[in-house]
Amino acid sequence: MMQRSGRKRNKRSNDSASSLKQLPWSQVQNPYKPFEILHEGQIDAICDTAYRILEEVGMDILHAEAKEIFRKAGARVESGSDRVFIDRGLIKDAMAHAPSTITLHSRNPSHNLDLSPGKISFGSVASAPNVSDIERGRRPGNQEDYRNLLKLCQSLNTIHFIAGYPVEPVDIAPRTRHLECVADMAILTDKVYHAYSLGKERITDALEITRIAHGCESWSEFKEKTRLFTIINTSSPLRLDGVMIEGAMEMARHNQLCIITPFTLSGAMAPITVAGALAQQHAEALAGMTLLQLVSPGCPVAYGGFTSNVDMKSGSPAFGTPENAQAAMIGGQLARRVGVPYRSSNANASNCVDAQATYESQMSIWSAVMGQANMIMHGAGWLEGGLCASFEKLIIDAEMLQMMTKFLQPPEVSEGSLGLEAIKDVGPGGHFFGTAHTLERYETAFYAPILSDWSNFESWEENGSKTATERAHLIYKNILNDYQQPELNSSWKEEIDDFVARRTSEGGVTGDF
Amino acid sequence: MMQRSGRKRNKRSNDSASSLKQLPWSQVQNPYKPFEILHEGQIDAICDTAYRILEEVGMDILHAEAKEIFRKAGARVESGSDRVFIDRGLIKDAMAHAPSTITLHSRNPSHNLDLSPGKISFGSVASAPNVSDIERGRRPGNQEDYRNLLKLCQSLNTIHFIAGYPVEPVDIAPRTRHLECVADMAILTDKVYHAYSLGKERITDALEITRIAHGCESWSEFKEKTRLFTIINTSSPLRLDGVMIEGAMEMARHNQLCIITPFTLSGAMAPITVAGALAQQHAEALAGMTLLQLVSPGCPVAYGGFTSNVDMKSGSPAFGTPENAQAAMIGGQLARRVGVPYRSSNANASNCVDAQATYESQMSIWSAVMGQANMIMHGAGWLEGGLCASFEKLIIDAEMLQMMTKFLQPPEVSEGSLGLEAIKDVGPGGHFFGTAHTLERYETAFYAPILSDWSNFESWEENGSKTATERAHLIYKNILNDYQQPELNSSWKEEIDDFVARRTSEGGVTGDF
Repeated sequence: MMQRSGRKRNKRSNDSASSLKQLPWSQVQNPYKPFEILHEGQIDAICDTAYRILEEVGMDILHAEAKEIFRKAGARVESGSDRVFIDRGLIKDAMAHAPSTITLHSRNPSHNLDLSPGKISFGSVASAPNVSDIERGRRPGNQEDYRNLLKLCQSLNTIHFIAGYPVEPVDIAPRTRHLECVADMAILTDKVYHAYSLGKERITDALEITRIAHGCESWSEFKEKTRLFTIINTSSPLRLDGVMIEGAMEMARHNQLCIITPFTLSGAMAPITVAGALAQQHAEALAGMTLLQLVSPGCPVAYGGFTSNVDMKSGSPAFGTPENAQAAMIGGQLARRVGVPYRSSNANASNCVDAQATYESQMSIWSAVMGQANMIMHGAGWLEGGLCASFEKLIIDAEMLQMMTKFLQPPEVSEGSLGLEAIKDVGPGGHFFGTAHTLERYETAFYAPILSDWSNFESWEENGSKTATERAHLIYKNILNDYQQPELNSSWKEEIDDFVARRTSEGGVTGDF
Repeated sequence: MMQRSGRKRNKRSNDSASSLKQLPWSQVQNPYKPFEILHEGQIDAICDTAYRILEEVGMDILHAEAKEIFRKAGARVESGSDRVFIDRGLIKDAMAHAPSTITLHSRNPSHNLDLSPGKISFGSVASAPNVSDIERGRRPGNQEDYRNLLKLCQSLNTIHFIAGYPVEPVDIAPRTRHLECVADMAILTDKVYHAYSLGKERITDALEITRIAHGCESWSEFKEKTRLFTIINTSSPLRLDGVMIEGAMEMARHNQLCIITPFTLSGAMAPITVAGALAQQHAEALAGMTLLQLVSPGCPVAYGGFTSNVDMKSGSPAFGTPENAQAAMIGGQLARRVGVPYRSSNANASNCVDAQATYESQMSIWSAVMGQANMIMHGAGWLEGGLCASFEKLIIDAEMLQMMTKFLQPPEVSEGSLGLEAIKDVGPGGHFFGTAHTLERYETAFYAPILSDWSNFESWEENGSKTATERAHLIYKNILNDYQQPELNSSWKEEIDDFVARRTSEGGVTGDF
């Protein structure tokens, strides 16, 4: 038990902000077959092309130790260069060790995440350099907003994990930022969180804070479970950066999850065709996951899909497009072929919280959910193609994610729910408002929104004609107001604080990366 | 050929407003398997309950001739009442005559609609009493806005049919309104349209105008093809009104399409459970379609699904909810069981064009498309649970429908599209902007939006920080500006005008209904 000390709590505080009527915490289960865009032969063709890319074009591995690991495993390393050619046999042998299902442990066991087929988890927005709300406008990321976003994510049951820093707090020095940020995630939330894989030092610090927060007295105890994850973006096309590799290898050696997510924007860093971009995505993901299986056979890895397209007029990335949706679904097919969990996103490219932000997000959510991603990054709060975290968008997304959760629970079909007796009682021309069948069920029959306003036009006008975005603003403030810090053993909390203080006084990491 | 006369036209005018870069006209093909929420045994249970409703509870048929038709076919009519008990054997025998696939003919043959499995058509908003745009606000329906909405629907290729009066022009007298409105649909558009089934007279007038617009010299020629459709809403629970029946029987006798759409709002006019509401929906739809097969065996009928839920706090209807989405998809399963085309909707309950309007619509669109509705009513422009037609929402919906159209076209997987040679040319660390593979494809590779703005924040701010709704306002005005009236044989147009003038001078219909 993690909650050994601390103040008294009301019954619901573990799961929700008290004034908010929301769905209870639960991981989402998609009970349907994954939606498949391509047939098996087409998936074969993409996989074969990915193998040929790694065999014939190769991949630049910007890390001496990693190159050496590949070389020892039988890959051909071009002398005097970073180019590594990886044979499909080597990949298949290495990937045979990768676990097909993973449990991500939180310091609060009721918030553990099961990454097995059909199970879906939604994450927060991550890594935005800017933050906005409609009251104060757009501003650079900062610690106050960072903490407020964490508090919202903790309070909203539909946000299952912290996908990274919801916003980058640039008012904290880069060398110590990770210390304060990881400590905040470990203290202000009791959900699974992400650590950035920017070199070995930062990951080591994040592992240490997580070890303390989980009450592990030894590293061997820590390593028994997967408790932390990191996203490894390849530098597409076909390049793995040194700092990323360094952090990832450290994570793998600690039995922690690395999700290899190629940054394959079709038309820019990948071919302009969906099939070509996915072939490249598949090659890059395989190369990264293979490296980690060579580093630490059996370590948890997952397949990240982020393929979208650029606007060919401006070169700007576009998200929530038809091609993005197709790529997200096919990515699921490719990940299932490899046999590892799959990560997708809820993304959009709008510059404000409007209809575009919403329909692009819905395209992302539907395709990720129907394509059965296990982790949906940026699930709530992403705006501007990731350049801004929005408080109001976070609430709108939470509503959309809750709706999807309810949609995925098939209706009961039973004698009672079929209601023949109720229909007999009411008869032609009557109504069902006051029947026993209705009264028994009305409190839980339908999804109850946190944001949607179903009042008629006149009542809505009387209440100030507020748009969903304006209502979301009020809702986020109320949730922040009701925020309750999750319990954490006080001596562990002290230990985290001491660690952060010590490492900060030492100056943090030795290089900016 | 319909275009025998008229002014010269530019090459694209048949399909699009000239300044608008939109997808070409095409019916949408969903190439995937229909999404199935329930398994066959559960569908059996709903169908069996529907039969038992009709056998044991019965249906009120408020039309003497219709009751007599049911009685002659073997149904039990309760003496001195409108209650009709219909046996499943009678229903199955009658429904065996219903065609499984229907072509809806337009006066422009390139705008015909194929209602066969997997084919999807999107309709306009219909029947809203109010209309709004952000410049002039919300106002009662009127002829000017009515005509402007028709012009937009004609100009937008993604709107395949006119689903009814986009807004009710209450400034035209009820007795002659249908004459002017149907003439406008026949003249200002060359797409398939709907006629309201409010008694025999109105339908007869609509049939006459349509006969002239299609250049049919005789009724037997007219009846060879299905050219007009009507939505028959049951007065749920379990009642079919006389005026609706009268118009429907006239349509059936002319081989025109009747879509029976029960108005089963769960919790109000139907059981509070999705399964119960659908059992009642199924019963009502079967009763209506059976009547028409008895009236005119083999006449075109379709199954309408409109089951949603009410807000249990206010009693207001809610749309785009998780339950609405489930019901829309299961409705498709039920319609396929019967073997007739299926109609669903793009609905939302928001009071303004905001994120709520958008995510509720997306829930509707995804479920209707994945559930393979053949006709999606209210596809563009619906707001406020149908109480308002919005010019800006119409543009936003058109964008969402186009995106769905593109999403449904699976990506090509071929040697060329897999792009191995391009990836070899670019190599690790390069980019694809200038490659031959990109240059050959960039103009058509990705979906090109009509509304979405993918510029960066700074450019967007320079351009006035316009929301999608504000941009949609400008777009609709431009489209109206560029509207071109589709050609119509001038003598047919004269004949329509003369008919409307004569019927108007006679005073229109004899009763308000």
